[in-house]
Amino acid sequence: MRLLTDTINNITGRDESFRAAATSRLDGLTMPHWALGRLMDLAVDLCGMTRTMRPRVERKMVVVFASDHGVCAERVSLYPQEVTAQMVHNFVNGGAGINALARRAGADIRVVDMGVAESLESLATEGKILSRKIRPGTSNIAVGPAMKLDEAALAVEAGIEIANALSESIDIFGTGDMGIGNTTASAAIVSVVTGLAPREVTGTGTGIDQAQLQHKISVIERAVAINAPEPADGLDLLAKVGGFEIGAIAGLILGAARLRRPVIVDGFISTAGALIAATLSPSCRDFIIAAHKSAERGHAAALRRLGLEPLLDLNMRLGEGTGAALAMNLVEAAVGVLTEVATFTEAGVSRADER
Amino acid sequence: MRLLTDTINNITGRDESFRAAATSRLDGLTMPHWALGRLMDLAVDLCGMTRTMRPRVERKMVVVFASDHGVCAERVSLYPQEVTAQMVHNFVNGGAGINALARRAGADIRVVDMGVAESLESLATEGKILSRKIRPGTSNIAVGPAMKLDEAALAVEAGIEIANALSESIDIFGTGDMGIGNTTASAAIVSVVTGLAPREVTGTGTGIDQAQLQHKISVIERAVAINAPEPADGLDLLAKVGGFEIGAIAGLILGAARLRRPVIVDGFISTAGALIAATLSPSCRDFIIAAHKSAERGHAAALRRLGLEPLLDLNMRLGEGTGAALAMNLVEAAVGVLTEVATFTEAGVSRADER
Repeated sequence: MRLLTDTINNITGRDESFRAAATSRLDGLTMPHWALGRLMDLAVDLCGMTRTMRPRVERKMVVVFASDHGVCAERVSLYPQEVTAQMVHNFVNGGAGINALARRAGADIRVVDMGVAESLESLATEGKILSRKIRPGTSNIAVGPAMKLDEAALAVEAGIEIANALSESIDIFGTGDMGIGNTTASAAIVSVVTGLAPREVTGTGTGIDQAQLQHKISVIERAVAINAPEPADGLDLLAKVGGFEIGAIAGLILGAARLRRPVIVDGFISTAGALIAATLSPSCRDFIIAAHKSAERGHAAALRRLGLEPLLDLNMRLGEGTGAALAMNLVEAAVGVLTEVATFTEAGVSRADER
Repeated sequence: MRLLTDTINNITGRDESFRAAATSRLDGLTMPHWALGRLMDLAVDLCGMTRTMRPRVERKMVVVFASDHGVCAERVSLYPQEVTAQMVHNFVNGGAGINALARRAGADIRVVDMGVAESLESLATEGKILSRKIRPGTSNIAVGPAMKLDEAALAVEAGIEIANALSESIDIFGTGDMGIGNTTASAAIVSVVTGLAPREVTGTGTGIDQAQLQHKISVIERAVAINAPEPADGLDLLAKVGGFEIGAIAGLILGAARLRRPVIVDGFISTAGALIAATLSPSCRDFIIAAHKSAERGHAAALRRLGLEPLLDLNMRLGEGTGAALAMNLVEAAVGVLTEVATFTEAGVSRADER
């Protein structure tokens, strides 16, 4: 718990003086006032995060945390649990959605086993993934807590440690997830934190039908009723209805915030992690960039709760960090606007008429 | 007119067999069904445009057409007319918004003088811009037509010729514009084609206030009333209330469609050009990718009219092709999904449970 406490205690929010300086520079660029809209808002945010007028965002990494979920025993997903491990192999072989999109973004990928049911030791030994396995999958939240409180702390600290270990080599992080069943855990978290009923924040995940969705909602209702998680206590919430990969995502966000590095939060599962992180340290939100609005029901409510406006809305619902990878180019574009566009004075362009 | 007629006659729409083959491949990728949403829709579109399962989109160019507008005499813009030429110099010197964003997208820029009031001969002689100047600015649409009908045809043909000249070296085009006063001409075009009143499709352009906006609307109302352009006749419409750069944008779109190359249409002015192009050849719409929803009022209505759904919505309203440049990464990402992601069979991942 020491690392977690130290990290939380050392997160300070955005720097208003750098935000003001960035705003002032952008106000003078050779274009109508604030004509690049959200790219300019983003540039201001980046300066406030990094305390510099030239934020570095070149060295990009998506960290994909994988884990299994005991709640799969309730048949909440369309896919069998073995797919979690199979997809880790797919990541390692470069054949998944996140591989294609990270490649296009010029981002590295790190895959972390937080609790995949199957053994992935050989991949870890070969250095192809990082193993921070807590145990082979959480317990079934429909009958009891997902994990013990000390396991929850371990999961979050794993994410913090990964951020810290990358502090010399990475400028900007993206969060990613893989775990059959994890929209169920995430919907439970979102329901508890937002106060919305499970049916209002539960989506079809991998593509279940309406009857299966009703069943999934009833499983989440049961999980919340049985475990009675504390909405304001992130670790309790994580332990009772979360997942190991969700805890690690929360940790990566806290670690990035502590390092004053931007962290691009992907979709529904990553945002559940962000809700946990924000419960532990509200200031960490200042370092989050919301990549996209997922097609998964409940995501918009989760983002609203965090006060985040997503950059993209492309009807995506894959996870893996795919939205985060896609948003990285927009972040680089925002920095390009800030650092490469000339001011009216520099370019000798006439300003707006005084009337 | 020969080139225009030949081009229009040789545009055929999307190829359904390649669309079907792309859909079939994407259906089998290792992810829940269609989980990358609009990226997958876009991949299907690209295959239908290019008649290949591996659309090439690496060699990218934004063509920025610059021209002046006689309607500036009515004081419709916040900026003096000289800014058009000054911004061309800024493009050449690499200091404008489009330079920063094209650089990030890995796209080249070509700047074309279609009718800038000031002489830009030295830039053209040095090869820094292309000169296709029709004359130094259109006539004032508030008192008569913008140009003669044969000038309108010349403007469109200039755009077609540029597309043709780049056919060996460019895979995908982006449209861009520069011209103080061109939101006035564009709003007139959008009003006539959509049948919406000028006040419903006229925005604040470079940032005029409400009183100036009322004035701008009245100028557009006058221009439409005096010239009575024919909504279904693109050349008549262009001649009466358009602009040289708007005509060239229409031509670039037609030329790209004839070459079966995708063309990313930027914001409000470019979409006015697309409306002209679609009047001349409805099938050209199959080759258009709408980059973003501009903050300029009237843009959404224009896109709706064309049946286009924009990829981005970032509160931008700069023009220059900035939205098109920003969308290029999304197009490359779509191709990456199509060509680099493994299928369930290839990756040995279990499919959804049969229930």
